[in-house]
Order: sequence, then C-alpha cells, then structure tokens
Amino acid sequence: MLPVDLPDTVRDALLAPLVDHHCHGVRRDDLTRAEFELLINAGGSPAPPGTTHFDTPFGAALRRWCAPLLDLEPHAPPAVYLARRAELGAGEVNRRLLAGAGVVAFLVDTAPDETELLTAAEMGRHGGAAADELVRIERIERDVAETAQAAVDYLDSLGEELAARAARAVGLKTVIACLCGLDFDPSRPSRGSVIAAANRRLAEPKEPPSDPILLRHLLWSAIDVARERGLPVQFHTGFGGSGPGLHRTDPARLSTLVRALQPVGVPVILLHCYPFHRQAAYLASVCPHVYVDVGASAGVMDELLELAPFHKQLFSSGCRGVAETGYLGALSHRRALGAALGSRLAAGEWSAADAARVAHMIGSGNARRIYRL
Amino acid sequence: MLPVDLPDTVRDALLAPLVDHHCHGVRRDDLTRAEFELLINAGGSPAPPGTTHFDTPFGAALRRWCAPLLDLEPHAPPAVYLARRAELGAGEVNRRLLAGAGVVAFLVDTAPDETELLTAAEMGRHGGAAADELVRIERIERDVAETAQAAVDYLDSLGEELAARAARAVGLKTVIACLCGLDFDPSRPSRGSVIAAANRRLAEPKEPPSDPILLRHLLWSAIDVARERGLPVQFHTGFGGSGPGLHRTDPARLSTLVRALQPVGVPVILLHCYPFHRQAAYLASVCPHVYVDVGASAGVMDELLELAPFHKQLFSSGCRGVAETGYLGALSHRRALGAALGSRLAAGEWSAADAARVAHMIGSGNARRIYRL
Amino acid sequence: MLPVDLPDTVRDALLAPLVDHHCHGVRRDDLTRAEFELLINAGGSPAPPGTTHFDTPFGAALRRWCAPLLDLEPHAPPAVYLARRAELGAGEVNRRLLAGAGVVAFLVDTAPDETELLTAAEMGRHGGAAADELVRIERIERDVAETAQAAVDYLDSLGEELAARAARAVGLKTVIACLCGLDFDPSRPSRGSVIAAANRRLAEPKEPPSDPILLRHLLWSAIDVARERGLPVQFHTGFGGSGPGLHRTDPARLSTLVRALQPVGVPVILLHCYPFHRQAAYLASVCPHVYVDVGASAGVMDELLELAPFHKQLFSSGCRGVAETGYLGALSHRRALGAALGSRLAAGEWSAADAARVAHMIGSGNARRIYRL
Repeated sequence: MLPVDLPDTVRDALLAPLVDHHCHGVRRDDLTRAEFELLINAGGSPAPPGTTHFDTPFGAALRRWCAPLLDLEPHAPPAVYLARRAELGAGEVNRRLLAGAGVVAFLVDTAPDETELLTAAEMGRHGGAAADELVRIERIERDVAETAQAAVDYLDSLGEELAARAARAVGLKTVIACLCGLDFDPSRPSRGSVIAAANRRLAEPKEPPSDPILLRHLLWSAIDVARERGLPVQFHTGFGGSGPGLHRTDPARLSTLVRALQPVGVPVILLHCYPFHRQAAYLASVCPHVYVDVGASAGVMDELLELAPFHKQLFSSGCRGVAETGYLGALSHRRALGAALGSRLAAGEWSAADAARVAHMIGSGNARRIYRL
Repeated sequence: MLPVDLPDTVRDALLAPLVDHHCHGVRRDDLTRAEFELLINAGGSPAPPGTTHFDTPFGAALRRWCAPLLDLEPHAPPAVYLARRAELGAGEVNRRLLAGAGVVAFLVDTAPDETELLTAAEMGRHGGAAADELVRIERIERDVAETAQAAVDYLDSLGEELAARAARAVGLKTVIACLCGLDFDPSRPSRGSVIAAANRRLAEPKEPPSDPILLRHLLWSAIDVARERGLPVQFHTGFGGSGPGLHRTDPARLSTLVRALQPVGVPVILLHCYPFHRQAAYLASVCPHVYVDVGASAGVMDELLELAPFHKQLFSSGCRGVAETGYLGALSHRRALGAALGSRLAAGEWSAADAARVAHMIGSGNARRIYRL
Repeated sequence: MLPVDLPDTVRDALLAPLVDHHCHGVRRDDLTRAEFELLINAGGSPAPPGTTHFDTPFGAALRRWCAPLLDLEPHAPPAVYLARRAELGAGEVNRRLLAGAGVVAFLVDTAPDETELLTAAEMGRHGGAAADELVRIERIERDVAETAQAAVDYLDSLGEELAARAARAVGLKTVIACLCGLDFDPSRPSRGSVIAAANRRLAEPKEPPSDPILLRHLLWSAIDVARERGLPVQFHTGFGGSGPGLHRTDPARLSTLVRALQPVGVPVILLHCYPFHRQAAYLASVCPHVYVDVGASAGVMDELLELAPFHKQLFSSGCRGVAETGYLGALSHRRALGAALGSRLAAGEWSAADAARVAHMIGSGNARRIYRL
C-alpha cells in the first residue's frame, strides 16, 4: 500500500490512527445496485444509458482496494462486488470498511432526521473509534424555519438552537458556498434587514435558504457562538453541492471575511477546496487562524505540501453515503502522503524525522490541537 | 513512442484508430516560413524580433516527432524542416501527417468560405478516414447577417439555415465563450429583445456578433435544433480566441445553463477547457449529459483521469491550420494516456483489462456512442 | 543538487550565472528569532501558539539547503540554524547566501526609505554581481502624495518623479493587483476624474492609494514613461500582498489592458503569477509583448514549459527580507528546470543542445534582451 522504500519511522507515522476531521454518516441499510451507484456519484443522477458510475476514478479505486476487505480479488467486477456486499450485509461491510480506515476519531457532520444514516456514535462504534459532532448551521436554520411562527421567534430560536447544539459539538460547519457562493458581502447584516429577510423566509420554510442576508446572519451568529465556546468554523469550499456557479466556491472569494475574522480568534477550516486547494493553502499560509483540509490525490498532496504550513493541514475522508468513501479516503491519504514524502526523502530534501513528524501532524496532531480533542 | 512496459492489450488499445471529435481543416497550399510560424501560434502575431515561434513547446514537439515523418532526423532545425516540407509539397505532407495520426474519423468544424483549408471530405481522404461535419453556429449567423434585409428575415433565415446545416452534420458547435464570455444570462431571451438586437446587428453585419442577447438567441435556436435531431452541442471553453477576459471562458460559469439543459436531453461537450479542465471534469462527473474533451499533455491527462468518468472523456486533436497539429494531437494523446495508464498499472491500481477498455472508450468508443457514428 | 544524468552542456547551462530580474533588498541587521520568522512568512503574523513558520515548505528547504552554506549539517534544527546565523552576523550570512545564488545581475525593487534593507548597489556587492533598479510606481505616488499641496502639484510632481526615477532604472513595476485587483477599467481615465481623485487622495496622503481612477492614472503615466524610454513594465500578479480577493489578481483579468498595450510597444512582464501561471503563460504565448516570470517549484516549471514560449520566460528569485529567499530561489530554479529538462531528455523529447539553449534563455538570455542589460 505504501512505497516500499520508506524508513520505518515514516511508515509507522503514516499507518498511525488518523483523526477524520470531516465526514458524514453512511447508510445503515442494504442497497440495490441503483441506490449504490447514486451514492458513489456526487451528481445525484443515474449514469447515462449504457454506462455505469463504476467507470469512474472512484469506481476503479473501490474495486481495487475495497474488494479485498470483502474477501474478493482486487479489481472484482461491479456485479461481483455488490453481490458479496449484499451477502455480508450492510452492518458487516460498514464495520470492515470503517475499522479498516484506521481512524481514531470521527468528527461527523450529523443529519439527525436522516435515520437511514449512521449517527456519530454509531460511526464510532463501527469503526472502533471515538466520535464527535459537527453542527451544520444550515440544518439548524431549516429546522427553525419549519417551526417558527414569526420573524422574532425565528431569530430567537436560531440563536438558542445554535448555542444548544454547539454545546455538544467540537465544531460548526457552514455550506454557504453551495447556497449563495462565497462572494457575499462579508459584513454583519443590520437587524432590520435580517427581520425583513426572516419574514420572507417564513413564507417558504421548506425551501433551502438562499437569501444572502439571512445566510450572513446565520453565519455571523454561528461565529459568535464559536467565539464564545472556542470552536472552529468549517467552511465548505470548492466543488460539491449544487447552487451557484462552481467558480463562486473559490475560497479566494472569502479573503475579506477571513481577514475580518482574524482578530475574532475563531479558527477557520477550509474544507474540500478542490480544485482551489492552492488558494486555500495560500490563505492558510498567510492567516494564522486559517486551516486547510487535505484532499486525497497524489497531485493535490504535492501542491499542498509545496505551499501550506505543515501545522495547518488536516486530513479528512469526506466520507459520505457508503463506507467505501471513508475507507478509500483514509487509504488514499496515506498513499498520497507516502508518495510525496518518499520522493522528498529520495531526493534528500527532507530528513526521515521531519517526514514522520509532518505525517503525524497532518494525520492527527493538528486536528487534536485545533478541535481540542 | 509508448512506455516500454505496457501489456500488449493496453498497447493495442492505445494504438487503435481514434475518433477525432473536434478538428479544423488544414491549409492545402505551400506555406512560407512567416505563414507557417503564424499558424503554429494561437496569437496571430509574429514572434518578437530575434525570436521564433519554433522556440515553444509546440515547436519542440514538431521538430522531435514530425521530422521523422518527413524523412528527417528528430530535432531537425526549423529551416531544415521547412525546406523539406516545401520539397515534399503541402499535399504529400498533409497525407503523411494526417494518415500518421491513426484516425478513423474526423469530425471537422468546417469553414466553407475559407477555400485554402481542406474540407471535411478532403481531411478524410488525406487521412484515410471517414469525415463528418460540425456546424459552428456563429458562422451561420455571420452568413445570415450579411444577406438579411430586415430583422424578421434575419431571424427566419437563422432558423432555416441552422436546421438545414444540422441535417448534414453530426454536431453543433458554439464559440460564444470567445465572443461574450460564458457568464451570460442563461435564459432564453424574449422575442422582443431579440428583434431589437437583430436590428442593431444588421447595421454592422461585417463585425463578429458580440451582443449577448443575439448570441443567446442563436444558442437557444441551436439547442432546439440539436434536440430535434438528437445532436450534441460542443461549447468552446478555456483559452483560445480573443474576446473578453480569459477567466470568463471557465466552464464553471456555464453551470446554470448546463443544469437547465439536463431535462432537454441535449449532450453538452465541453471543448478544450484548458486550464479549467478540472472544472469541466467535475461538471462531466455530476451531470449525466455533460462530456469533456481530453487535452493532450501528461499533466492534464492525470488531472482528468483522477476526476472525470471514463465514459465522459473524448479524444480530440484540436487540429488547426497545419497538419502537424493533428498528428501531434493524436501522438500526444497516446503518449500521455499511455504514461498515465502505465503508472496506474505499475502501482497495481488498475487491471490491464480495465486500462485497455478505458483507452478504447476515450479514444473512440465514447465518441461513437455520443455522435452516433 | 542537479539530476545526476544530465549531459555536461545542460548542466553547465543550468549552473551558469543567472539574471535575477525581480528581487527586493534583504535586511542588513542581525535578527531575533521572532523577526526572522516574520520575514519567512508572507502573512506578517506570528505562527499560532505551539507552531513555527519553520514548519513550512520554505522552512524545510531553508534547513536543507541553506544550513550547509552556514557550515551546518543539512536539516539543522531551527534553533541551531539561527544561533549559527547570529554567530556569523548578518553581513557574512548575506554575502554567503547572495554570492551562493550564482547571480550575475540583480534587478531590485528598491525601497529607499527602508534603510534596514540593502540597496541595489549593496545587493550587487554582497552577491558579487551587477545591480540595477526597478521603480515601483506606487512608492513614487506615496512620496508625492505626502508632499504635494494641491491636485495640480500632485499630478505634475507625479509625472516628473516618474520620469526622473525611470531615467536611472531598467524597468518599472506596479502592484496595482494588490491595491484594487486587476479587473479595473483598462482605459486611461479622464483628466477631470483624475483631478477629483487627486483631491480626495490628498486628504489621506498616509494611506496606501486604493482609488482605481488614481491607480489607473498612475499606471498610464508609467506606461507613457516606459514607452519613451523603452522600458518594460512589471505587473505583480497572483498571490502576495493584502488587498482585494486573491482571485482578482489573476492575470487573465488583465487581458483587455494587455491587448491595448500591444501597439504601444511596451513589454509587459507578469510577475509571480502563482497559482495563475497557466493564465500568464497563455498570455505570453499569444501576445508578442508579454513575458512571464518563472516560479521555482517543479510543478510550476513543468506547467510553464508545456505552454509558454521559451523566449518569454524569465527567472527571478523574488528575494525579499532575508537572503535565504534569494539563495533558495536560484537553487530551486536550477533544480526544477534541471528535473524538467532531465525528464524530457530521458524521454527523447528534446535534444541536449536545445535543453542547454533553453536553460540559458530562461536563466539570463531573455532578461538581457528585454531589459537591455
């Protein structure tokens, strides 16, 4: 799995348990092929006639690396893989894959009303790991919007719910990038404009929020809570989710807000970032309170290691939907970081001690410090 | 030409005839050095005094790979290369290079009034291949604008010409990115606004169209025709052409239009894409009707193979002006894909059977399916 | 330092003295650890508690490559490195590192009032090289704004100072990207609007200028001077500096201005560019008067060599603050270019003669021609 010529100390550091600082629950139930295919593609549509979502980079990796954990040969055909998966049952598959990921703690963006997904506690149990919650603030907003009667109730409830949920969490998370892009006005909106926006919102409580005024209010409320409780705020950036144009999810567009948050003292975690990881890495390098999520491909890893401070990079699997995503996320991280460190060691650019230390920082040390685990 | 350690099945798949799903005619006449230099640079200006357009990545590749097809040593100096080219004559050179590309079908963005360029049929004859037409809709618009007398004539003729030309074509193509950027309002413009724009347009029929209202009308008219005839629509994206800022050719800016086209059922082919190929690959991965043109450099190939579904990638040479571009496009594709597959095979990440199958899909299979060849 | 299997001619070309066409003076005084850490990070803030700016890609390179020049083992710990640095004293360290860079001429963005920095002449003396001045036009503006009494004085003085400083310089430089982004109106502003802007400016002469009207006037005045004197104009692009969003420093946003400058005949040098070097390389490939600064990482080098004309690429170290940046800039350039050329030679893609010639062009030949050294 790792390059063969790594020193033992580096190999040990790469294989040490990871903190997965951003993942989602996976499905607890047995899945049909159609359901499984939908879950291994971010688009939410079936593959066109005559094609399959297995014919993708993810599908190829799944067949190569997950098949052996299900007692199959590498590169097993999709039908064979899914038959074996059904035979073992979702519970056993989830246990094998999540435990196989070698994770010591999952930080889970939980979805309390999606009962078909494992909870944070269940993710931990299946994976033999600790588990903590991340609070996605737009979920709280939706719950409040569905029950509030008037704008004032709505605003009061929002603040109360944020505080209550944050009390049990290790971090907050926002997906504002997917709802209105990251080029919103970074200032705190006025009370009057927020009340007006809340009234508009209560007219359509079932829709996802899209009004930048309301989303900014929600974000600033979350920042207040994060500051009080010493929690980081995760920002989804880069591709993923629908919403406005992909180019508007570039974390570079957060520059002004990020600078405004420096004196506030709230750590900003830029999630995902791809393909804007260089932008995220640069922000992490110049802003003491900004951190960058480390993707899992060899190319991205090299681009991050050439720019971002080592104490600012955090592993995550981005696990979602099926446990294969969690297993492959961890595996790909170890392989990509192993390759990147291996080439630096072979060129005499780094010492083995530094390589092992950096692998540990990115894999778990930084997350323990920032999330106070 | 290919990595030496590829399995035979993969080598055979890489060397199999390609469908070149996007190219232009090449010059049929003998060229002076000045003419030739202008054609191997996208900018349309001579190189600065004391320099040459041969001192470019393309020039280096041409001297290395095309020289042997003209019976010269690799790395022949530019003057030697051009002398031999003149000696053989344009016809013979075009035959050697186009046939050497190993293409089974050319899909040609034809330019009927540029008589110095080979037609689609001639491209096929020179290359020993089939040939089909792509209709560039902005060319039709220009022809109609030059002859129409009034706005209503103009609009009627536009619809008729689009339908007539599409009847003989395998796809439509738009260069709206080069004329007004890709961040135009994606909705269909109103009839009234189109008539007003047509009147303005007829006052300056010799200029390239730049009015977004007219260009949107043209595009939506083309989409209607494409839907009726089951044709894909190619969008030029990424660098190339003059027009507004390069950043406005990012296919991410097409996100909203692309989503609007999903229920319409018209395949969207993102051409060129560089350096926004990751954006294009992401759209191809989440939208079932979106496809991505595969560039020819090793770096880009790796970035596409790590993100885009294999059934969504299409080889093209982007051949333009001189046949060297077509030969090098095909050669570079085979070399880059060979290197990418070779490294995956060496790492045990893919099986040889999968590698051969993917090479076939990208090289010709996907294009046959989508263009119904 | 270089790949072991390079032909001697290529090795010699890589080791030949460089023209460093863009650098800053380094500190002449002995530095505390806190001061040193601030200077090796672009952000201007200390690293968060428990971390250090040495745990960065730059810190790792410094410990690996600069330590031996200070008679230490590679990978010396930061404390050991800084103790030895203090022991030798700043003068000796600067001499060793700047001379070690192997530079034949420094073009220095001078800062006359920052007396703790080496002047251009001193940079040359320490490095055993020639030295010339680059005039940063926004510095001139600041000096004029601080002394002018009225708008007309201000405008007259600006023109006079630009002309006077340019008479002693080899190039002009603008950091307008960091002040208002590169998506400003590229036209020359009207006299009336400039006078109004100058009046506003004189009310706050100590602030950095941010009014796009004034900045455009300054830039066009500089372009006039550059045209008269046959000087190039350097544009900072890409990351670096504070100011508006990072995405607004993409040189693609300069497309319209760049096209307007083609008939003017002023060479445009795009500095830094990262992570938009592909955009810069494309502009350099299509515009005869545009040149691109070559970054120092292996990844960027490959991306430039696959796109930009070889006669359009210019080495710079971007040296700033401490002499380690200058030494590592030159070293990284030679290593990255050596690796890129080595892989092309190994694949039979280039001849050794071409590789040596290109190394020479990028390292010094292009700069000599463009700056008329």
